[in-house]
Amino acid sequence: MTKDIAAILAHPQFRAACDALRDGHARYVDEIVTLTEIPAPPFKEERRAEAFRGMLAGYRLEDVALDGIGNVTGLRRGRGNGGIVVVSAHLDTVFPEGTDVTVRREGTRLFAPGVGDDTQGLGALLAFVRALDAAGIETEADLLFVADAGEEGKGDLRGIHHLFTEGDFRDRIGAFFSLDSPEPESVTVRGVGSHRYRVSFRGPGGHSYGDFGTVNPAHAMADVVAGMARWQVPAEPRTTFSASVFGGGSSINAIPQEVWVEIDLRSVDQPALDALDARLHALIAEATAAENARGDSSAGIITAEATRIGARPAGETAPDAPIIAACDAALAAFGFEMKRDTASTDSNIPMSLNIPAVTIGTGASGARAHTLEEWVDLEPGQSLRGLSAALAAILATAGLHVEG
Amino acid sequence: MTKDIAAILAHPQFRAACDALRDGHARYVDEIVTLTEIPAPPFKEERRAEAFRGMLAGYRLEDVALDGIGNVTGLRRGRGNGGIVVVSAHLDTVFPEGTDVTVRREGTRLFAPGVGDDTQGLGALLAFVRALDAAGIETEADLLFVADAGEEGKGDLRGIHHLFTEGDFRDRIGAFFSLDSPEPESVTVRGVGSHRYRVSFRGPGGHSYGDFGTVNPAHAMADVVAGMARWQVPAEPRTTFSASVFGGGSSINAIPQEVWVEIDLRSVDQPALDALDARLHALIAEATAAENARGDSSAGIITAEATRIGARPAGETAPDAPIIAACDAALAAFGFEMKRDTASTDSNIPMSLNIPAVTIGTGASGARAHTLEEWVDLEPGQSLRGLSAALAAILATAGLHVEG
Repeated sequence: MTKDIAAILAHPQFRAACDALRDGHARYVDEIVTLTEIPAPPFKEERRAEAFRGMLAGYRLEDVALDGIGNVTGLRRGRGNGGIVVVSAHLDTVFPEGTDVTVRREGTRLFAPGVGDDTQGLGALLAFVRALDAAGIETEADLLFVADAGEEGKGDLRGIHHLFTEGDFRDRIGAFFSLDSPEPESVTVRGVGSHRYRVSFRGPGGHSYGDFGTVNPAHAMADVVAGMARWQVPAEPRTTFSASVFGGGSSINAIPQEVWVEIDLRSVDQPALDALDARLHALIAEATAAENARGDSSAGIITAEATRIGARPAGETAPDAPIIAACDAALAAFGFEMKRDTASTDSNIPMSLNIPAVTIGTGASGARAHTLEEWVDLEPGQSLRGLSAALAAILATAGLHVEG
Repeated sequence: MTKDIAAILAHPQFRAACDALRDGHARYVDEIVTLTEIPAPPFKEERRAEAFRGMLAGYRLEDVALDGIGNVTGLRRGRGNGGIVVVSAHLDTVFPEGTDVTVRREGTRLFAPGVGDDTQGLGALLAFVRALDAAGIETEADLLFVADAGEEGKGDLRGIHHLFTEGDFRDRIGAFFSLDSPEPESVTVRGVGSHRYRVSFRGPGGHSYGDFGTVNPAHAMADVVAGMARWQVPAEPRTTFSASVFGGGSSINAIPQEVWVEIDLRSVDQPALDALDARLHALIAEATAAENARGDSSAGIITAEATRIGARPAGETAPDAPIIAACDAALAAFGFEMKRDTASTDSNIPMSLNIPAVTIGTGASGARAHTLEEWVDLEPGQSLRGLSAALAAILATAGLHVEG
């Protein structure tokens, strides 16, 4: 076996796989179009998952199936040496139901909501599976192909979270790739964790004049946000907070019965994120108690409820991890210069569990993700260099079985 | 002439007027029903105004007309001694267009949105005009009957404001009655002033993680509301404030570009209200400057805009003013005990101009004003005592001309 990039690149079977990627490029593009045009709004990825399961059939994969959370998985068994390497892309898009997802082609460009983020990644999984079969490649570790649910927004990485906490393969996963961007040079090696809350402050309310002096939940909310404004947080590990969206109150002549604010806390470091989270909860308790002490609570007290509306763990792949070195070498071999990025992606989950993970690109160019003007350019030259580099990095991580 | 309540009550012409009220009570009720069923939503009082103008025709009134703001006025000329005494009720209700305003009768009760507040007052104006004519009463001062626009909410007392600032009669008004409540015993002698603002805080916005450190308008808003929470205000003259309704922010992962809060300031004392207003503006400037000093404003600074969305002047009728004494004596004569109230009504305007003014009831019982379940009970016994007492107070203020 070998995990050496130079040896892999030189191996006839890898060259055969690259040929298969080249020969199948038109099909790769067509499959991206097909999948893009199957809507996959947040929490409604089922139709696309079913279609993808069908497209995964007929290859050297075991147990192609939908798991309990809505991920499609297919295991490509290796030689039994080295557990499982996950190769994933996410099913969901950010676009709500009813969005026109018709793909418009202009030369090598595809225009459509979700085409790059992350339908192209799904296409890459299919292209890899075919290329591996065509080249008769055997890996040392098993490869688990995963089209996962709930990467975006309130999906909260639930597909990959499930994979690592409840999935059948959870105890055997040794490395993790997420294909989730057109750009080939960006390799996400740090995962920004986030805790998101909607904090509601409630009280008895009353008439603004007649009941003046009654505790006002707006005062407690304001104390929380004013307190946050004065927080000092570390620049490294980068840690941030934002009071973002506000609402509540029913009438200008009423002391509100409820007001609320949505708060976003982030850090690349989980202990720092947990510390900030504790600080927020302490501030909420303090601000609420202060208003109850300050005002008249005979008609009722101010209470606060912090509902967690999002949680993504922070994590990092060790800078000297072989998976990063493999990406670096594979990209360099195909003419790309790796950039180590920090982002919030499916890799957050394995990173938080100290499982080596990277989020990589698929070799295209593209832009305007999360807008209706999203596009990717699948010009075959760069596209094939990117796909080949990614496949090389995966093989270097799983180990290429070499006969004799 | 006489302004003495005992003399007025004993005078045959006043007794004749009371008889006319009694004989016309069924018509009074019918007219309230008719007017209630003509919708008069905020800023859309025209239809009811037109109908009321028609109903005022044919009496001993001059110049029955709609003025520039939408008030219906009709002058009942007196002997030319003592300027003008206004007798008013408001046309508008709080109910939006499309509200079912059909009146349901149960015995002497009428159920409908707006029936008591203030359609019944409009009915009382008609009943008074008829009773005065029937009894052949002449007053010393002129009586100006006014059905006014915009008393409720955002209407901001604009009908009566116009009457006193731009109306044809503005320089001659010496006393003011507003009939605006079923309850006969409540006499409003102090007007709560209010200044209402929507304060918007704006900034450059940005990504909550990528642009962390950028000035956040929510911090400025929170400093304002937290600062207000710590204000000390006088209990006498009663002065109040409320941060009421909140909004703004577009997404939990964005530093907001705009957040806003609606603030209600009130006082029975105009200088105290003005001082609180200045304090709010200073606090807004301070909080905005503090956030600009605290955060990164390279992409833009935080600005604040306080838009006044309501203003009612504070005022008071002198406790020993003859208009209050007249009410007290008239009510007592008909078996009611006057209560001096504080409220925000059309009388705020003349009170703020030091013109003696009271807001009084029409002698019914009722409840649930400002709800769809509003009702009044026009049981003739109490209703006629209340109407008669109000008419006596008006005549005592305008002066009853006595022959010979």
